[in-house]
Amino acid sequence: MADFRIKDAAVYEKHYQPHTAKELLPEAVYGLCEIFQDRIAAARLVANPGCYPTSVILPLLPLLKNKLIDPTTLIADSKSGVSGAGRAPSLTTLYCEVQESFKAYKVAGHRHNPEMNEILSLETGARVNVTFTPHLVPMSRGMLTTCYAGLRQGVNAGMIDDCLREAYASRPFVRLCAAGRLPDTLHVRGTNFCDIGFRVDPANQRLILISAIDNLTKGAAGQAVQCMNIMLGIKETAGLLPVPFAL
Amino acid sequence: MADFRIKDAAVYEKHYQPHTAKELLPEAVYGLCEIFQDRIAAARLVANPGCYPTSVILPLLPLLKNKLIDPTTLIADSKSGVSGAGRAPSLTTLYCEVQESFKAYKVAGHRHNPEMNEILSLETGARVNVTFTPHLVPMSRGMLTTCYAGLRQGVNAGMIDDCLREAYASRPFVRLCAAGRLPDTLHVRGTNFCDIGFRVDPANQRLILISAIDNLTKGAAGQAVQCMNIMLGIKETAGLLPVPFAL
Amino acid sequence: MADFRIKDAAVYEKHYQPHTAKELLPEAVYGLCEIFQDRIAAARLVANPGCYPTSVILPLLPLLKNKLIDPTTLIADSKSGVSGAGRAPSLTTLYCEVQESFKAYKVAGHRHNPEMNEILSLETGARVNVTFTPHLVPMSRGMLTTCYAGLRQGVNAGMIDDCLREAYASRPFVRLCAAGRLPDTLHVRGTNFCDIGFRVDPANQRLILISAIDNLTKGAAGQAVQCMNIMLGIKETAGLLPVPFAL
Amino acid sequence: MADFRIKDAAVYEKHYQPHTAKELLPEAVYGLCEIFQDRIAAARLVANPGCYPTSVILPLLPLLKNKLIDPTTLIADSKSGVSGAGRAPSLTTLYCEVQESFKAYKVAGHRHNPEMNEILSLETGARVNVTFTPHLVPMSRGMLTTCYAGLRQGVNAGMIDDCLREAYASRPFVRLCAAGRLPDTLHVRGTNFCDIGFRVDPANQRLILISAIDNLTKGAAGQAVQCMNIMLGIKETAGLLPVPFAL
Repeated sequence: MADFRIKDAAVYEKHYQPHTAKELLPEAVYGLCEIFQDRIAAARLVANPGCYPTSVILPLLPLLKNKLIDPTTLIADSKSGVSGAGRAPSLTTLYCEVQESFKAYKVAGHRHNPEMNEILSLETGARVNVTFTPHLVPMSRGMLTTCYAGLRQGVNAGMIDDCLREAYASRPFVRLCAAGRLPDTLHVRGTNFCDIGFRVDPANQRLILISAIDNLTKGAAGQAVQCMNIMLGIKETAGLLPVPFAL
Repeated sequence: MADFRIKDAAVYEKHYQPHTAKELLPEAVYGLCEIFQDRIAAARLVANPGCYPTSVILPLLPLLKNKLIDPTTLIADSKSGVSGAGRAPSLTTLYCEVQESFKAYKVAGHRHNPEMNEILSLETGARVNVTFTPHLVPMSRGMLTTCYAGLRQGVNAGMIDDCLREAYASRPFVRLCAAGRLPDTLHVRGTNFCDIGFRVDPANQRLILISAIDNLTKGAAGQAVQCMNIMLGIKETAGLLPVPFAL
Repeated sequence: MADFRIKDAAVYEKHYQPHTAKELLPEAVYGLCEIFQDRIAAARLVANPGCYPTSVILPLLPLLKNKLIDPTTLIADSKSGVSGAGRAPSLTTLYCEVQESFKAYKVAGHRHNPEMNEILSLETGARVNVTFTPHLVPMSRGMLTTCYAGLRQGVNAGMIDDCLREAYASRPFVRLCAAGRLPDTLHVRGTNFCDIGFRVDPANQRLILISAIDNLTKGAAGQAVQCMNIMLGIKETAGLLPVPFAL
Repeated sequence: MADFRIKDAAVYEKHYQPHTAKELLPEAVYGLCEIFQDRIAAARLVANPGCYPTSVILPLLPLLKNKLIDPTTLIADSKSGVSGAGRAPSLTTLYCEVQESFKAYKVAGHRHNPEMNEILSLETGARVNVTFTPHLVPMSRGMLTTCYAGLRQGVNAGMIDDCLREAYASRPFVRLCAAGRLPDTLHVRGTNFCDIGFRVDPANQRLILISAIDNLTKGAAGQAVQCMNIMLGIKETAGLLPVPFAL
């Protein structure tokens, strides 16, 4: 249900359908728990974020807020498992069409693009337009997003690391990769974690920032439970820390 | 065998090992048939290109030569099937480690990066540094590269299309996607084709340019046969146009 | 098109639908080229065999004809890739339903069961009822059938081997595994071959007989081309021996 | 660790290596909780069963004990995901060797065969020799076994169903399929359940009996925890009933 993810009803209606409850838009809170915990705790109506925006906003927002990266240079190259397309039978999600197939789809036209743009713009005060390319991966679940951003003058890897660690120090579902490691969808499979890692391309003073989530948990039902926990005032992780599931 | 792909012996030795036949470097020709056909026809020594450079240079080079894109903005986000890693048993290419796993590796450090940089620089006269991120896809064969490039002032989609069609009009193994279509690794599986398609992101005047090859044919053995055909003066497509192989 | 595979119209109608051209049944020839080559060459109407019957009849028939195995003990445990189910979108063939799923379906009720029973009975003069269990494998193409049969008194592995080698010595698309090897669907992928291998379970004087085909070639379109070649009097392998396709 | 699974040291040594603690064999208990719960509760030393024997003994044993099936007719056609082969790098478990490959291995020679034979023989007083064929499935985890057995005179489907339901009525990790349903490895993935279903082939008075387990839980670590729970006198399901894991 994307009905209350986008504040701007005109943008919503361009990408979805006529909005039938616009009067509720002002009070709706975007349910990205790591960013809007306080508002979610006080909310009556929470919009569960899209999977792609979750994987894009979590790594980028702290760096944008702290002016470490240039908001005019943002690219998000996302790769999603097939369960993101839902369970309704269709030619494009048949086993024989997916197996050994890797492709982009809805390039520069996916409706999660205005969603991430609006949140990043509202939270930073800048007008952010992410170039967003979703791809379909031959796997059931998992999403990995590779973001590219120009580093501002004088910014180095240590500053990126510090910023991310400070932003998410107390957040139970964001894990920053240790030095030398990068996210892998297999490591977040069946969990509500968002793993984040990065590299700097020194030749271009450009940041390569990678996040991984399970699109069905942190990208969907798990995040909804996380929101509910916060709204109910119970432990944020309740029901979301099962035994490890290795494969 | 990457021994004669890179002209600059110092760059080669930094990424590979000591070069034991430097005296042959000047005469070696880079075997990307669509670009260097004439030189290959006259060559005694041809270096078969790497799979990643093939998938990056073919889409980008005509646009760079015709000054339609800004050489300081180039990003190549590549995704490769597992056969690219070879057949020697290793933990990272075991079925259970690959299945449901999508991840980047050797970010900003892969040795195919200097190879593509050198060719693009030599052919355009500019100093080109591609930000290059390879990823591993849970599939056996296939490679898709999503390139990002800033469009120069005044450049539009029609000019991109014209440039690519002109560059590859007479080349049997490059196929430009019809309007509205984009490459899919499944469509080049078991073939020597390189499929190329693109979209423009108008909000950022940025090009999203996508290529797909089969890393084992156009990205390896098929391209070697294509070079051999040209060197021998026989039909370039000899042995490379088998019956369609659908899945 | 299964319309002329089964001679007995009542059996056909029980498993399919009313037969609208029964008058053509007597002249229709079952298009299993390795068994009925002569009749196919003279035929006006050939029924292309089902994939499962192809994988069951080819290994079993020579042994039954030569009375090496007991016709009352036959079991065929078949495993098919997903393309066998066709390309119409359905829940059961979606990627996320197939991946990591192995299951039997239509056990003791698949309509290929009467087809194989009829051919084996007609050709041996016995009343053969194979216990047939089809399974769905998480792969696109390929079919492996494991047959079980009681060896008749005094029959040993050497006699099985001799019988099969004699039966298929001159047949271009049946390959008998070398000693110590067994069929693998990957080895027949994209080909028209049927690979056959076996083991004897000495504790039970029971034969384990394994065949592998590609359900889309030898199990469907490839076999149809093979029939056509024979009908036209051209080389049986015409169009069916492309370059090797490794993965 | 298979060291105490087989009581007969000579059989063990034929299939494994010299046994270095034969004196402990008499007190070791076979840790198949559904069958040996009382002995496990009193044991000091429990041998965790092999994955294949677990999937074969659970469906067959109650029917053998109640003399509903003929012990001389038993066939077990097993299919296992790749994780059963362990995590040591080897050519046969590489992604590109497994993908689109279905094959049998160690036919009539797998060392789990004497293990299942011994338990079935000891528990029924008959000399049971199962014809056992393991296959490798292109998936990470999951095991499905299709057993074939001749029904004794007068035995029908209702009697099979009654026998299995009575045997496992109070066992938390055996689930009998509802009428018309059969096991699927996807339904037991990440769980400690063994699902069992069956069909009767009336033409041959033969039973087709199917079980599904996750080879890493009920077939390995999960069963070990279940044994431990019983040995410790705590709830048998402790730690083994996590939240559902759908894919």
